[in-house]
Amino acid sequence: MTGHHRTPVTVVGLGSMGSALAEAFIDAGHRTTVWNRTASKAVPLVSKGAVQAQRIDEAVAASPLIVACLTTYESTIEALEPAAATLKGRALVSLNSGSPAGARQMAEWATGHGARYLDGAIKNVPSAVGAEDTLLYYGGDNTVFDEFTSTLRVLGGDTVYLGADADLAALYEMAVGGTLLPALVGFFQGAAAVQARGLEVASMVRFSIKWFEMINSVLPVFAEEIDRGDYSKPASSVSLFLAGAAHDEELGKEANLDMEWHKPFHDLLKRAVEAGYGDHSISALTEILKNPAPTT
Amino acid sequence: MTGHHRTPVTVVGLGSMGSALAEAFIDAGHRTTVWNRTASKAVPLVSKGAVQAQRIDEAVAASPLIVACLTTYESTIEALEPAAATLKGRALVSLNSGSPAGARQMAEWATGHGARYLDGAIKNVPSAVGAEDTLLYYGGDNTVFDEFTSTLRVLGGDTVYLGADADLAALYEMAVGGTLLPALVGFFQGAAAVQARGLEVASMVRFSIKWFEMINSVLPVFAEEIDRGDYSKPASSVSLFLAGAAHDEELGKEANLDMEWHKPFHDLLKRAVEAGYGDHSISALTEILKNPAPTT
Ligand SMILES: NC(=O)c1ccc[n+]([C@@H]2O[C@H](COP(=O)([O-])OP(=O)(O)OC[C@H]3O[C@@H](n4cnc5c(N)ncnc54)[C@H](OP(=O)(O)O)[C@@H]3O)[C@@H](O)[C@H]2O)c1
Ligand SMILES: NC(=O)c1ccc[n+]([C@@H]2O[C@H](COP(=O)([O-])OP(=O)(O)OC[C@H]3O[C@@H](n4cnc5c(N)ncnc54)[C@H](OP(=O)(O)O)[C@@H]3O)[C@@H](O)[C@H]2O)c1
Repeated sequence: MTGHHRTPVTVVGLGSMGSALAEAFIDAGHRTTVWNRTASKAVPLVSKGAVQAQRIDEAVAASPLIVACLTTYESTIEALEPAAATLKGRALVSLNSGSPAGARQMAEWATGHGARYLDGAIKNVPSAVGAEDTLLYYGGDNTVFDEFTSTLRVLGGDTVYLGADADLAALYEMAVGGTLLPALVGFFQGAAAVQARGLEVASMVRFSIKWFEMINSVLPVFAEEIDRGDYSKPASSVSLFLAGAAHDEELGKEANLDMEWHKPFHDLLKRAVEAGYGDHSISALTEILKNPAPTT
Repeated sequence: MTGHHRTPVTVVGLGSMGSALAEAFIDAGHRTTVWNRTASKAVPLVSKGAVQAQRIDEAVAASPLIVACLTTYESTIEALEPAAATLKGRALVSLNSGSPAGARQMAEWATGHGARYLDGAIKNVPSAVGAEDTLLYYGGDNTVFDEFTSTLRVLGGDTVYLGADADLAALYEMAVGGTLLPALVGFFQGAAAVQARGLEVASMVRFSIKWFEMINSVLPVFAEEIDRGDYSKPASSVSLFLAGAAHDEELGKEANLDMEWHKPFHDLLKRAVEAGYGDHSISALTEILKNPAPTT
């Protein structure tokens, strides 16, 4: 297929991620119009074949599909505001990070100006854009997803439609991403313990990787327990984890580490036991997390 | 090779894990002597070809290699005490969970009775015993590991010697295992958020799995930063994570979740910024964890 059979695309926002998106469209043979507040960032893309729009309304008018990737929803609205009248009837896809509430506001603004709005998230780094297993998920107007699926798939082979609500990608993004910092702090603690013994942290990496693979292998079981609301046939019980808490303290003493960050986890375990979940699956902690203590 | 060329092995402790170990040795053609406090648990193994010892000293005397898998180091010593005189010159391997301090005490007790002691940990469930990629690691007497490597490999194809210190398996066990509860709580929080929207938790599992795979892909980079003590070329900075903390709070509001357990993480991030690590890699948190606040 030659380029002129492919959907023309406009990319708004040429930061690290936006530039990677534009490049993927160019490489796939799409006529690609680009716009960035700081115009100079378009230079490398123009040399690869992109058309640089001088004004945002020209950029929007150039294509039926506009992909925006700016810092936040607020900056996306700010950048598109002068082109609001041009959005009518066009498909607008935004790929920035943000909260579900931000996504809903963005959708309201875009549809208010007559755009068909699809909200997405890219779960990877710029260098992974275009790869077969790169994941992007979308929520919002299904006519946009259906009409432009093959174009969107240029950005990553693992392209998923979550549903009609425009905040779904942001919701999943947060739901999934919440493991990152706690998991890393757990790893850094182990790293500090290994280092306190004069050993290389590199020596534990392959064991940690295997451990996360083990964790991955049990997630479907936990999800099923939570979906069914039945925690009564545990592979690992709340009490077992509470017994393990004592070992944590030993590691802290062993390596002179700050273990303060463990306390809320032990509190969650104790609250689960008090709620009658001692002999139930550790996934019963989900129920405890659903009941915030009144803020004091 | 026929059975009588293989090292005779004694397995002490026939709980879920000990029974799986004994079965693997039987299946591999080792003459396998078994002993358990509650003798009836030996019955299924005897029907498969194990020799049941009536007394613990008979069990120890039956083989040059004794593998113990009881609840704790304390229970292992308690069970082996009546056979202490028989341990002299034999190789003793224990595979229970426990603290590095417990491992050192166990080693002192065993070597005090003239045994050659190797301390191990099995990083998997009983049904995985014997599989090609099942990981077991060991620390302690290298003559035991060298002499019995092929026998120990019967329990799992990924069999690793960590070094001469008997507490190394327990140390790595704790260093590696410390990610489990925090990672799971992060997942359960996401599960609660997805469920609060009337969506199935099962729908997020494949995204979570991909996310942990992403985390695994960055661990070698973090390990290198920590080993070099150079956090100055960040892929993700402390400040970036601190900015993300605000989003966490949005998720809590969105789904009415208990977010109290986030506070210590935000404190760690703030302390890292105060220590001058704001623009440095998130792995710099390792340095913060090394400095416990004075207990109040
Ligand atoms: N980079 C990644 O690894 C990655 C991965 C997944 C998701 N994301 C998300 O993708 C989005 C963009 O990330 P990035 O890495 O590309 O960021 P970046 O390199 O910092 O680029 C930010 C872009 O937003 C533009 N911008 C910001 N405020 C603006 C405003 N008020 N008006 C007009 N333009 C404005 C910037 O324009 P100027 O050039 O004029 O400043 C620039 O094009 C973020 O939400 C990020 O969380 C990034
Ligand atoms: N199961 C797993 O998934 C798994 C995975 C990795 C590591 N581990 C570790 O492996 C070890 C054993 O686990 P398990 O699952 O096999 O436990 P288990 O099924 O509860 O069995 C415990 C064993 O220890 C014996 N025992 C306990 N106290 C004793 C004492 N004072 N004197 C004599 N025998 C005593 C029990 O004998 P009786 O039968 O007479 O009570 C039984 O044989 C633990 O340290 C565990 O953390 C287990």
